[in-house]
Amino acid sequence: MASIRDVAIKAGVGIGTVSRALNGSGYISDETKQKIMQAVEELNYKPNELAQNLFRNKSGFIGIVVKNLSHPFMASLVKHVENNLYTNGYKCMLCEVGDNPNRIEEFVEMLQRNVMDGIICCADIPSSVSLAEIHRPIVMIDRYVTEGIPCIHSDHKRGGELAAQALLSAGCKNVLYFASSATERGCSMDRYRRFAEVCKQHKCKITAIDAGSKILNFQSGPTIWKKYISHFDGIDGLFTADVTAAACMKMLQKKGIKIPKKLKVVGYDGLDFTRFLTPELTTVCQNVPEIAKRSVDTIIRMIDGKKIEEMEQIVDVTFRKGEST
Amino acid sequence: MASIRDVAIKAGVGIGTVSRALNGSGYISDETKQKIMQAVEELNYKPNELAQNLFRNKSGFIGIVVKNLSHPFMASLVKHVENNLYTNGYKCMLCEVGDNPNRIEEFVEMLQRNVMDGIICCADIPSSVSLAEIHRPIVMIDRYVTEGIPCIHSDHKRGGELAAQALLSAGCKNVLYFASSATERGCSMDRYRRFAEVCKQHKCKITAIDAGSKILNFQSGPTIWKKYISHFDGIDGLFTADVTAAACMKMLQKKGIKIPKKLKVVGYDGLDFTRFLTPELTTVCQNVPEIAKRSVDTIIRMIDGKKIEEMEQIVDVTFRKGEST
Repeated sequence: MASIRDVAIKAGVGIGTVSRALNGSGYISDETKQKIMQAVEELNYKPNELAQNLFRNKSGFIGIVVKNLSHPFMASLVKHVENNLYTNGYKCMLCEVGDNPNRIEEFVEMLQRNVMDGIICCADIPSSVSLAEIHRPIVMIDRYVTEGIPCIHSDHKRGGELAAQALLSAGCKNVLYFASSATERGCSMDRYRRFAEVCKQHKCKITAIDAGSKILNFQSGPTIWKKYISHFDGIDGLFTADVTAAACMKMLQKKGIKIPKKLKVVGYDGLDFTRFLTPELTTVCQNVPEIAKRSVDTIIRMIDGKKIEEMEQIVDVTFRKGEST
Repeated sequence: MASIRDVAIKAGVGIGTVSRALNGSGYISDETKQKIMQAVEELNYKPNELAQNLFRNKSGFIGIVVKNLSHPFMASLVKHVENNLYTNGYKCMLCEVGDNPNRIEEFVEMLQRNVMDGIICCADIPSSVSLAEIHRPIVMIDRYVTEGIPCIHSDHKRGGELAAQALLSAGCKNVLYFASSATERGCSMDRYRRFAEVCKQHKCKITAIDAGSKILNFQSGPTIWKKYISHFDGIDGLFTADVTAAACMKMLQKKGIKIPKKLKVVGYDGLDFTRFLTPELTTVCQNVPEIAKRSVDTIIRMIDGKKIEEMEQIVDVTFRKGEST
C-alpha cells in the first residue's frame, strides 16, 4: 500500500506539503495541488483517517449514551441519532450503560481525551462525574444537569395533562400512576406533577407507586408485577410507560379484569408494538425523530463553537387513541 | 493541560521515551518508567488517545452494521455486541444502513483506512462491495458471503423444524409461510427449507409468500397486510417472524378469526414483546446474547491475527410455547 512518502516522492514535493494539501490547510499552489492529486490517484493512496483527524484535532466521532438498548424508546433514539449524525458527516460511537454507571465516567473521559468531539446522553449521570467542569460539548436528553449543558426533552407536562384528560373523560375516579425511579429523576417528573394536578382538579383520587428502574425491562415485568398486584384493588384507571402498561394489561387480563370496561389504561412513549396489543393501547407519543434531530443539531453547533440560544428545548407530544380507554 | 513535552521535561527524558513508556513498546528501565509515571501523575497528564492509537496502528474501534435498529432483534444484537466489545476493551461504532446500502460501502472503506479494526455485519452486502478483496477482519451474522469470512447464525434449520412440529402436532393441514426477502437471502432460507420439508413429510399443504423486506417493519405492518389478506383463506396455520406474526394476529382477530381455535400461529425470533400479546405468541427463540458473544470473540481473534477454526458457527434455538398454538 502506498504511503504519504510515496505520494510526496512521486509529486516531487515534501511530506508536509502533501499533508497540507490533503487536509486543506495552508496555501498550496494549484499546480502543486494537481501534481499531488495525480500522484494520489496513480498510487491509489488512501490517507490514514486517524492521522488526518489528529492533525485537525477533531475525531469526527460523536457518542450516544443510553441506559438500555432493549427498551424500544432507546433503540429508536439511537437509530435516529445515528442517522442524523451520518447526514452531518459524523460517525456514531455507542455506549450502553446497563447496570454499570462507571461506563459514563469512562465515556466522558474519552471525550476529554479528544476521542470524541461530543456526547449526546440519555442516561443518569453518576454523582462521581461533574459535567460542569468538563467544558466539552455535551447534550442531555430528558435530564437537567447543570448550567451550560443543553437539555432536550418531550413536553412531559403536556403528556401528563393529555393522559389525565383521557382517563377523566372515560369516567375514572381512582387512578394509579406507576413510575420508575430511573426515568423520574429527570424532567419526566413534570409528567407526573401535571398528571396529578389535573386529576386533583377533577376530584379524582390518585395513587403513585415508584417501582424502581427495573420495571422498564420487558423480562422483569411479569415477576415484578406480582409484587404490585394489591395496588390495583379498587383502581379504575392506570397511567404508566408503554412497556409497563403492556405488562400490567397482560397480568390484569389473566386475573379476569376487563380492559377498558373495568379499568382504563393510558401508556406513555407511543411505542410501535403497543398497536399489536389487545386491546390496542391508548398512549401519549414522544416524537423520537425530532428529539434526535434537535440533539444532533445542538451538539454540532456546540462543536462548531456556535452559541446555543435555547438551553432547554421542548418537543411536542401527541395523543394516540387506542382501545384501552 | 499538560502535554507529552511537559512530562518529558519533568521526568528528564526525551519525548520518544515517554511515548514508548506510555505505549508499552521498546525497552525502558524501571527507574525511568517510575520517573515518567511520577511526572504523569503530578502533571495530571491525559494522553491523546488518537495519537496513541496511531502509534499502535490500531484504532480500538469495532463497527457493528445492522439494517434497522427499530427491529427489536437488531436492537438486542447491537446491545449485546456493544457490551461484549466493552468487556474486551473495544469501543463500538454503529452503522444503521436503513434504505441506504451505500452506507455499508462507506463503512467498509473506513475499515480499510484503519478507522476501525474490524466490522461485525448483520445486513445484506450490496453487490458493489467485494469483501473477498478487503483482507481485513469482518464477521457476518446470518449471511454467507465469501470464503474466509466467518458467518455466525442461529440453527435456522432446527428452527424451521420446531415450528413445523408445533403446527403439525396442533393438527394443521394447510399452512402459510410468510417471508421477507431481505432476511431470506442469507442462511435463514434454511429455516424455510426445513419447515417445508417437515410439513410435506406429514402431507401438510404449504404456501409461501415473499412480502419483501418492508414487512419486518412495525409501522408498515397494518397497511401491507391488507394486500395479503386473501392468502389466509382456508389456512389453519401460520409461521412467520415475530413482528409479522403480531401484525397478522391483530388483523385476523379484527376479522373475527379466533387464534388458536381457527388458526395456529408460530413466530420466529423470540422477542420479548410477544409475551404481552393476546394470545401470547408461541415462538422459536434465537439466542441473541450468544450470537453477539461469538461474533465479538471471532472478530477479536481475527484482529489479533489468530486462526479461525470454525468459519461457520451455529447457535442453538429454543422453542417457547405460548397460547397461539
